[in-house]
Amino acid sequence: MSDSAVNVAIVGMGTVGTGVAKVLLQHSDRLARRSGQRMHLRRAVVRDAARTRDIDLPAGVLTTNLQDVLQDRSIQVAVHLVGGVYPAREILLSLLEAGKDVVTANKALLCECGDELFSRARELGRTIAFEASVAGGIPIIATIGQSLAANQITSISAILNGTTNFILTQMVRENAAYADALRKAQELGYAEADPTLDVDGTDAAQKLVLLTQLAYGVKPKLGEFPRQGIDTLELADLRYAAELGHTIKLLAVSRLVDGRLELHVLPTLVRHHTPLAEVHGAFNAVSVVGDVVGHTWYSGPGAGQMPTASAVVADLIDTVSGRTRITFPHLEIWRNPAPFAMRPREEFSSRFYFRFNVEDRPHTLADIADILGRNHISIASVIQHEAPEHEHAGSISKPIVPLVIMTHRTRQGDVNAAEAELDKLPGLRPPRVCLPVAD
Amino acid sequence: MSDSAVNVAIVGMGTVGTGVAKVLLQHSDRLARRSGQRMHLRRAVVRDAARTRDIDLPAGVLTTNLQDVLQDRSIQVAVHLVGGVYPAREILLSLLEAGKDVVTANKALLCECGDELFSRARELGRTIAFEASVAGGIPIIATIGQSLAANQITSISAILNGTTNFILTQMVRENAAYADALRKAQELGYAEADPTLDVDGTDAAQKLVLLTQLAYGVKPKLGEFPRQGIDTLELADLRYAAELGHTIKLLAVSRLVDGRLELHVLPTLVRHHTPLAEVHGAFNAVSVVGDVVGHTWYSGPGAGQMPTASAVVADLIDTVSGRTRITFPHLEIWRNPAPFAMRPREEFSSRFYFRFNVEDRPHTLADIADILGRNHISIASVIQHEAPEHEHAGSISKPIVPLVIMTHRTRQGDVNAAEAELDKLPGLRPPRVCLPVAD
Repeated sequence: MSDSAVNVAIVGMGTVGTGVAKVLLQHSDRLARRSGQRMHLRRAVVRDAARTRDIDLPAGVLTTNLQDVLQDRSIQVAVHLVGGVYPAREILLSLLEAGKDVVTANKALLCECGDELFSRARELGRTIAFEASVAGGIPIIATIGQSLAANQITSISAILNGTTNFILTQMVRENAAYADALRKAQELGYAEADPTLDVDGTDAAQKLVLLTQLAYGVKPKLGEFPRQGIDTLELADLRYAAELGHTIKLLAVSRLVDGRLELHVLPTLVRHHTPLAEVHGAFNAVSVVGDVVGHTWYSGPGAGQMPTASAVVADLIDTVSGRTRITFPHLEIWRNPAPFAMRPREEFSSRFYFRFNVEDRPHTLADIADILGRNHISIASVIQHEAPEHEHAGSISKPIVPLVIMTHRTRQGDVNAAEAELDKLPGLRPPRVCLPVAD
Repeated sequence: MSDSAVNVAIVGMGTVGTGVAKVLLQHSDRLARRSGQRMHLRRAVVRDAARTRDIDLPAGVLTTNLQDVLQDRSIQVAVHLVGGVYPAREILLSLLEAGKDVVTANKALLCECGDELFSRARELGRTIAFEASVAGGIPIIATIGQSLAANQITSISAILNGTTNFILTQMVRENAAYADALRKAQELGYAEADPTLDVDGTDAAQKLVLLTQLAYGVKPKLGEFPRQGIDTLELADLRYAAELGHTIKLLAVSRLVDGRLELHVLPTLVRHHTPLAEVHGAFNAVSVVGDVVGHTWYSGPGAGQMPTASAVVADLIDTVSGRTRITFPHLEIWRNPAPFAMRPREEFSSRFYFRFNVEDRPHTLADIADILGRNHISIASVIQHEAPEHEHAGSISKPIVPLVIMTHRTRQGDVNAAEAELDKLPGLRPPRVCLPVAD
């Protein structure tokens, strides 16, 4: 064990920041042994010093003034745990400018401003470590950036958002509607009061952008690839999927097909008893294929105070030990120009699950089958149950029945063409659901 | 990308060595980008230069003389892929003495002589990297040594031997006897001509020793903990386990219980549809619990040319980039004295699966139940099927029927005491099977 010491600051003492402080204070011998440096928590910057915290900080550590960190040249590393993009960006930049190496868990910030922040860090001879920004306690950044460095990654398929996976698990297990499952997730602290960024797929998409940049040296923008959340999913779809031997997961996929990159975040049918289907509750999982290693798989807690703190402190150890200084300049994020083009979405190929709300009148099934057939979409299975009696009662409109169709492998271009025709078909009521099926 | 270059040698060009050479030759740009150094394969040491190899090496690379590596001061890193312990030990020591950093995949060697080799490396200012020695393509050494460095690992539960997992999968799927499944594994190249070290649990135990050293700073000796292979398992046990909702896996377990270390390699009943039960064929999997992160899970190909080469080349990149120089001196392997004592085996606690071969005569079941009960072993379920008619025919001895008992949670000490009494019970025929059940 070394006697040398390094001063550390935490900027942002929310749930994760408090967890990091706990590890630093409670396990300082362990961290010193593994990093070769004794880490002192010198400052913890908060917005509200009066707020009660689940931790006893040594006197003089807590401050509301970021300048106490920026101007303290004895602080070499800053843990940046400020959420959102602004002023998180300015704070991170100011830490770099002040000569600090930075550890951050903020995937939204890195997705939005990563190029700028990474470049500025390199210009200043500083590092940014970001293991905690994707998949919480799963060391997926280190795995892709270092452990699989002999490989060109060829496929990533992942459950990257614990909130939505908790909600989907809840819907299946409790036979609960989306709104009820969401409420339960909020009660248990798995979903925030405003869950939008989780349930609409933004959070998973931001993490997918980071993994894609790291694995392929390509940085897609958020709007450049298909993204759909689970907020429009109905329990009926989970039930029909189950009838077809599948469950539905919010999958983030990024893969090379014929040398071009294909990615999306979509609710996806996953066959029962396959590993992704067995990821329950708030867990995350990442399936990674490399051209040398083949298929590997990682799962663990995707969020939460201590799992995320575990990742942040691993980054701290890497940073103070000097490993990050070696790793950071050699990540694939620096590739320029990007080595892979994006694959046109029309070429995306998959089996698809369709659910139509069909007016119960003659020839609608024939019309749908005709449109699919003319667009080269071959039907693998169909489910149509009789409409329950009570839905007819007292209604002057025609009864609506759900029609579920699972296709054989089909190109997205053909699906798009069929959907344009289906839009004009009388006898169909919204919503029309169309989801891919995982291989 | 850097223009600096480093010369690399491979000592031992078997399956894995050939795979490493392929990666070095085919992906040199990739490796240069990720390590900051261009790696030149300068020498490949073989025993038989005339043997045909599945690779075209540049002229002058192949040699049968280890001195061509030892005396070439331009070679900074050696990939040591010599199997067994002797002369693998002497070769590794000579590489260190000659000033080379070493990457090895030899778990038998590190298990037997690791203390000596690691210490000698440190004295000489050299490093040994050994990711490929455990679980092939799964980066479990980096994960425990670096990514989970904020944690005290509290539990490892793993399938570490692909050969035995292939055989067990084959027995279940094909309803095959052990000998037939083994033959199939040999035909497909999953088992060696002499499979002893795989099927008797030695290979898994060696890997468990390395993981235990890395995770807990304790180095148990091979004979110090229970080890049983699958070579005494019968198909009947897999069938009864299935009837009880379980499958049988060769589990390597190393965990802290009340601050003391407990480990074993044993065929273990694992409940259907749990992650370990779903690891099929030659795959490996490692479940790791840390005191900060909680439960994490890793799986992938546990052996094979390219998965192992992926791990070796990751170590090469870490070594030439300088990361290994930082990591190696801070691993838990250096803890002295060992921070945890071994837990007395009598205190091991688990549910147990028993299979007795019982002579079909009065009171035997009562006698067994009496012995178990007096030793505080509570019975959870019993299976006894009628003996098939044909087993009686023409036999002068009493018919033998299998009796299967699943217990509630029981201490090993009580099981041992019961077994001593069962040894003396007339009416029982060997073998008597007693296996733990995973939590």
